[in-house]
Amino acid sequence: MIIQNTNWNFPTSIWFGPGRIKELVKACEHLGIQNPLFVTDEVLINLDIVKSTTELLRSGGIKFNMYSNVQGNPTGSNVTEGVDFYNVNEHDGVIAFGGGSALDAAKTIALMSGQARSIWDFEDVGDNWSRADVNSIAPIIAIPTTAGTGSEVGRAAVILDEEACSKKIIFHPKMLPSLIISDPELTLGLPSNITAWTGMDALVHAMEAYCAPGYHPMADGIAIEAIRMITKNLPIAVADGQNLEARGQMLTASSMAAVAFQKGLGSIHSVAHQLGAIYNIQHGLVNSILLPYGLKQNTLAIEERMVHLSIVLGLDTPGTSTIINYILDLRNQLNIPHSLKEVDITSDRAKEVGEKAFKDPSTPTNAKPVNARDLENLFMAAFEGKLENL
Amino acid sequence: MIIQNTNWNFPTSIWFGPGRIKELVKACEHLGIQNPLFVTDEVLINLDIVKSTTELLRSGGIKFNMYSNVQGNPTGSNVTEGVDFYNVNEHDGVIAFGGGSALDAAKTIALMSGQARSIWDFEDVGDNWSRADVNSIAPIIAIPTTAGTGSEVGRAAVILDEEACSKKIIFHPKMLPSLIISDPELTLGLPSNITAWTGMDALVHAMEAYCAPGYHPMADGIAIEAIRMITKNLPIAVADGQNLEARGQMLTASSMAAVAFQKGLGSIHSVAHQLGAIYNIQHGLVNSILLPYGLKQNTLAIEERMVHLSIVLGLDTPGTSTIINYILDLRNQLNIPHSLKEVDITSDRAKEVGEKAFKDPSTPTNAKPVNARDLENLFMAAFEGKLENL
Repeated sequence: MIIQNTNWNFPTSIWFGPGRIKELVKACEHLGIQNPLFVTDEVLINLDIVKSTTELLRSGGIKFNMYSNVQGNPTGSNVTEGVDFYNVNEHDGVIAFGGGSALDAAKTIALMSGQARSIWDFEDVGDNWSRADVNSIAPIIAIPTTAGTGSEVGRAAVILDEEACSKKIIFHPKMLPSLIISDPELTLGLPSNITAWTGMDALVHAMEAYCAPGYHPMADGIAIEAIRMITKNLPIAVADGQNLEARGQMLTASSMAAVAFQKGLGSIHSVAHQLGAIYNIQHGLVNSILLPYGLKQNTLAIEERMVHLSIVLGLDTPGTSTIINYILDLRNQLNIPHSLKEVDITSDRAKEVGEKAFKDPSTPTNAKPVNARDLENLFMAAFEGKLENL
Repeated sequence: MIIQNTNWNFPTSIWFGPGRIKELVKACEHLGIQNPLFVTDEVLINLDIVKSTTELLRSGGIKFNMYSNVQGNPTGSNVTEGVDFYNVNEHDGVIAFGGGSALDAAKTIALMSGQARSIWDFEDVGDNWSRADVNSIAPIIAIPTTAGTGSEVGRAAVILDEEACSKKIIFHPKMLPSLIISDPELTLGLPSNITAWTGMDALVHAMEAYCAPGYHPMADGIAIEAIRMITKNLPIAVADGQNLEARGQMLTASSMAAVAFQKGLGSIHSVAHQLGAIYNIQHGLVNSILLPYGLKQNTLAIEERMVHLSIVLGLDTPGTSTIINYILDLRNQLNIPHSLKEVDITSDRAKEVGEKAFKDPSTPTNAKPVNARDLENLFMAAFEGKLENL
């Protein structure tokens, strides 16, 4: 088996390997955490992996509380409630356990646990983050249970501002977890549809990061390798959820994709964030439907990169259209629909989607400049399932 | 031009771009350094780039001293003298300016500035590093002036133990500089032979890291992209030293190669370290002579990876022998000799080289297990210029 237990040191400490969750008590000791708040979501709280993990803490003599009132698209009030709970119980660190929603909520609770300001004051705009009292940010141990979001290696979280009906990116460099336990055994029980959607989310992260226009070859190299790993292993993990090697490769690749997207994302995420806020639909599913449309719209800007990517993937006739066809095939294998109208999204708010997407922090790093109308067109083409409209 | 001014955040803060050296005073302020020790080497001290850089400090009102008694292969006594100088003058940080020698010496001075133990107590063996008083390690700003060593992104330094006549790796996680100014304009004046040797050093870092057997796909992705960038840009930078784009790509690629080799190096470095200690010969030159021999000896272990690398590089007949021929061509273009006997190395200590190389910390991560005899054979084949002997 290719995957082995190993520790990595960038972008932060990562303890990777099957069974590494057993080192959770050691991880707490490593960071001097004696009374962690264990944050997970409302679905995971009922699963065996949460029970067995918290049992490790109990038998290791670690005092802790759990907070799991975290929705699929976590909200500002989920965070505020978690912060109150953290402070009432005088916790000294956060264990972030779950998929993107739980990790994002947990990281934001860690950030907000000692701040006087409102959460929205730390939206990722300009240098808002520098307003935070750095010493009051709680240390975080992140434990991903899906291979997709990559939130475990990120310095930001996506939180729904319910009043504004808009997803906002909350950012601080110290939201990067101090330690990650990356244990593919925790992902073995993930249903095949969630495996597919989260895995495609990781692919979109890597694709948009690679296509983002900045000069960041380290991110590019990581993104390319992540794309190679995902396209090879995702169909295996979806077809055979117990395949530990494919699960391990996907977990690693999803972290890599998220490291790469420090370079930036693009129009696919700009639109997906809005659809998530309006329709409360799974983020990876929306992303994967949008992916070929986003590539098509960016064709002229990304052709050279898609030629290289085609070569790396061993595809004939290198170029953007070849990559799009390859992704359409992959999506088919994974039973992911081709249009947004198939997943209970409506088109009546298309203009609003385009306008809000234009203001999304992912828009400026799209492969080519786009305006609100372009983003509305992107949405509508994906809604109708008409690639040819772009 | 592809290269643009940009800031990266992994593995540490990197301020990249032509002219970024002008932000040195800002960098000191950023880290709260008010009285830095400026460490460079005995050659650089006389060059214009040192004069113009220290002038930036002077005109910015930053008090500092300079220490430049650093040899080509820096020694323990170079470090000890620097530490004494640091403490007598009550410095509060280190500016590490130069190639691998200056950076390694500077990083080790920063480590040792507040330790009670001897430098050799921090040799990279087991968890020796944990003996250090972490809070007494000085903050480091690293400014590379060659594109090769990658020491600016590394957590270790190679220091010559004169008594043992052996190069030792000194390691501590906090030897990773807090901030790097990566300014390709500083490398424009590098002579073509040093450009070639240091650039090949970076290539060897990336090749050995990629071939190292551990599971570390993030390092692999970075290494592959670094190899692609180096093979494309090194001949340009050697032929036309004023080509800022090629210089910028080489500087970035050399940092990437060094990030990748957190995964490990291999037999080429094991042997090169010994030859550097015995013959005081430029490290990159030795590495680049050894490269094809090391690949040849590892052929069976690396074939699959060399097939993939050939594809990425667009080479026909993918495989190890194709990569070796490609590297022989590249080396020819760069006027690098094919054998060690051409560079004033003798063969009379071959057995000792093999035995010492076997104990080198790079040996356990070679692509396949090797013993002292294998390493002696590797040395002798490279000495005689006979690839066919491996």
